[in-house]
Amino acid sequence: MSTSFSSNPAAPASHFAEPRSADSSRLDLVNVRPWGGAPVDLAISEGFISAVEPHDPARPIPQDARLVDGKGLLALPGFANAHAHTDKSWWGKPWVSYGGEATTAGRIAHERAHRDELGIPGVEVSTAVMREYLRHGTTVQRTHVDVDLGVGLRGIEVVCEAVAGLDNTITTQIVAFPQDGVLRREGVLELLDAAAAAGADYIGGLDPATIDRDPVGQLDGIFRIAEKHGCGIDLHLHDGGELGAFQIELMADRTIRAGLEGKVNVAHGFAVGQLSPARQAALIERMAEAGMSMTTVSPLRVEPLPVRELLAAGVPVALGTDGFRDLWGPYGDGDMLKVALKFAQVSGLRYDEELTLALELATTVGAQFAGVASHNLSVGDRADVVLLEAENPMDALVRSPQRAVVIAGGKIVVAGGQLVR
Amino acid sequence: MSTSFSSNPAAPASHFAEPRSADSSRLDLVNVRPWGGAPVDLAISEGFISAVEPHDPARPIPQDARLVDGKGLLALPGFANAHAHTDKSWWGKPWVSYGGEATTAGRIAHERAHRDELGIPGVEVSTAVMREYLRHGTTVQRTHVDVDLGVGLRGIEVVCEAVAGLDNTITTQIVAFPQDGVLRREGVLELLDAAAAAGADYIGGLDPATIDRDPVGQLDGIFRIAEKHGCGIDLHLHDGGELGAFQIELMADRTIRAGLEGKVNVAHGFAVGQLSPARQAALIERMAEAGMSMTTVSPLRVEPLPVRELLAAGVPVALGTDGFRDLWGPYGDGDMLKVALKFAQVSGLRYDEELTLALELATTVGAQFAGVASHNLSVGDRADVVLLEAENPMDALVRSPQRAVVIAGGKIVVAGGQLVR
Repeated sequence: MSTSFSSNPAAPASHFAEPRSADSSRLDLVNVRPWGGAPVDLAISEGFISAVEPHDPARPIPQDARLVDGKGLLALPGFANAHAHTDKSWWGKPWVSYGGEATTAGRIAHERAHRDELGIPGVEVSTAVMREYLRHGTTVQRTHVDVDLGVGLRGIEVVCEAVAGLDNTITTQIVAFPQDGVLRREGVLELLDAAAAAGADYIGGLDPATIDRDPVGQLDGIFRIAEKHGCGIDLHLHDGGELGAFQIELMADRTIRAGLEGKVNVAHGFAVGQLSPARQAALIERMAEAGMSMTTVSPLRVEPLPVRELLAAGVPVALGTDGFRDLWGPYGDGDMLKVALKFAQVSGLRYDEELTLALELATTVGAQFAGVASHNLSVGDRADVVLLEAENPMDALVRSPQRAVVIAGGKIVVAGGQLVR
Repeated sequence: MSTSFSSNPAAPASHFAEPRSADSSRLDLVNVRPWGGAPVDLAISEGFISAVEPHDPARPIPQDARLVDGKGLLALPGFANAHAHTDKSWWGKPWVSYGGEATTAGRIAHERAHRDELGIPGVEVSTAVMREYLRHGTTVQRTHVDVDLGVGLRGIEVVCEAVAGLDNTITTQIVAFPQDGVLRREGVLELLDAAAAAGADYIGGLDPATIDRDPVGQLDGIFRIAEKHGCGIDLHLHDGGELGAFQIELMADRTIRAGLEGKVNVAHGFAVGQLSPARQAALIERMAEAGMSMTTVSPLRVEPLPVRELLAAGVPVALGTDGFRDLWGPYGDGDMLKVALKFAQVSGLRYDEELTLALELATTVGAQFAGVASHNLSVGDRADVVLLEAENPMDALVRSPQRAVVIAGGKIVVAGGQLVR
């Protein structure tokens, strides 16, 4: 039940955000238990893991190295948020009561009417959101960023400025996301084209049928841009049942035709969980042929994705926080460990290897969705390490304990459970 | 959308556990914000709230009083766990991997085969569970306790001993729960009769159709005992759809016939969420006529209870943790605030008053399910107070922050987020 992006070519480089950063000083992290195994000592140089050895209390530490004593804590790789909305939240601001019409179209309109009052998009907002990611141990993200006639590409610039302001501690890929629709707003396709030209890793889309009322038109439009620039596509699809399944088939056709295998993702994709078993199996097989992937935020009031079937067929799945504490609703706190727990619960996972899988989707697998091919606690990996007081990965998943220490790109960002940068 | 147990006569007194306890010394709790309102000073005497006044930094504090400076923290009443299994858990012990058959019957058999190895039932187990309740701010419980041919009534004795060992900080009512079936195990009805005779507040039942294969037989048996002793009934009903609805009707008939209005509860009751709207409305009306109530543990893989409809009809609803980290599965940590959050999410609650309602069900309303008629932050209420660093009740619900201070029956049990007893 493990999976990988083996069919996924290296993701395109982003001009918006440096994906990796390094710290020149040496850091030694001793006596930690990777994935609950035997204690090891990790050496970190230039922001990457340079050595992993069995723990030895007598090991000599270079004089100029900083030392973190892990005291036998559980070590996991940094969490990977594969479906974020880092540009919009009121996290850290006074409480904003839920308002507006409780439909997708209503939420979109409500957001556009009130985001300015909350400073969205803004460097301050994105910085607050990402500091909360870091506090919870998230060091990798693929974030959708609103692109529309109101803000143009400013949201993307703002998120990248905030990423840089946090010393690139969070490896970031950007999806230029037409939250307000594509065809129904003249000029949005041109914005997406400009975003891709400027180096956006992905362009997005949104419910081609129910938002634009033209599934073929929206998909043709965004696939044309992706083919032209060689970027990927990550499309929000809430449309359910056969309507959603039909649009996934349209996406698969276009993915193969454009040679975009390994670069096309369906976000949410509730439809996949809503089909009869035979119909579902056929759709999943088609997605696998097209090298498509899925991301889920583990919502509670819709049929869960058939994760076992998707992974068995070779359709990679990763997890994300979705937006949190925003104009769409008050829930969420940006903690990927809690998202993984919710995923495990809605998916009915109970055995140890299943609970561990949920954590893998939220770490090693999810990082591949942001262009990081190898993201673990091995020599050569970027030094993204989370320490927790937990017996083993399952215990960590079920209890969601405080992140005692977080190291991102070799930099200590959390110590004693508190942000230190 | 508020509710009360106005039709509920005072619950029978328990011989097993003293429901209330008092501390003779005076405690002053200053500068706290009840339910997010203006800051107040609370005086606590003999374990009860004796005064609530607007916060006044110049207020004279009696020389012999202990003082807790709330520093403007949010204050809520202690949480009420209306569906607990305080007798069985491996909380605090090494990880136990999930095993056995993944069905209700399989879980029952697995539990009976392995509980001895984990010291279940045992004072140590129940104490560990309740210390975790206290750490999270729970000060009131209605707990189901296994009664079967293997352990007899020992589980109840053990839980009551553990409650007393914790200085009765947790107000407790007991359900004598035939987890292994009633009619299918000869001698269990006699055990339930003995438990009721000894003062159990409630006797339980379990899926009369699918476990005993005799819905009328099981229900007649337990209602006969309840009528004889004047105790209540709290029945686990997982049976779904029409099969579950039929058994709720059988319960309603017997409740009215026996004059047990206000004393009969359906736990879980998935069926109520699985009916057509018209059928559901009729069943809820019948439950209201019979003065029945419901408890839910907000499971994620089943249709949620129609909470708005239940409350509007006058069927009280309260929340519980269910068992956690036990031989039924690894999930849960005994935190009622997280249960309330899950309840709010599965119920689709988003507006401020709805989020506050979820907290009321987990505090003021839930306490009525354990025989506490008035449980709030008012003069005369037992001094069960939880302080959290949160802006308002909604913020507390969504973030589930650490419980900074917990006072139970006037005793400080948590300070600085840590258990101090």
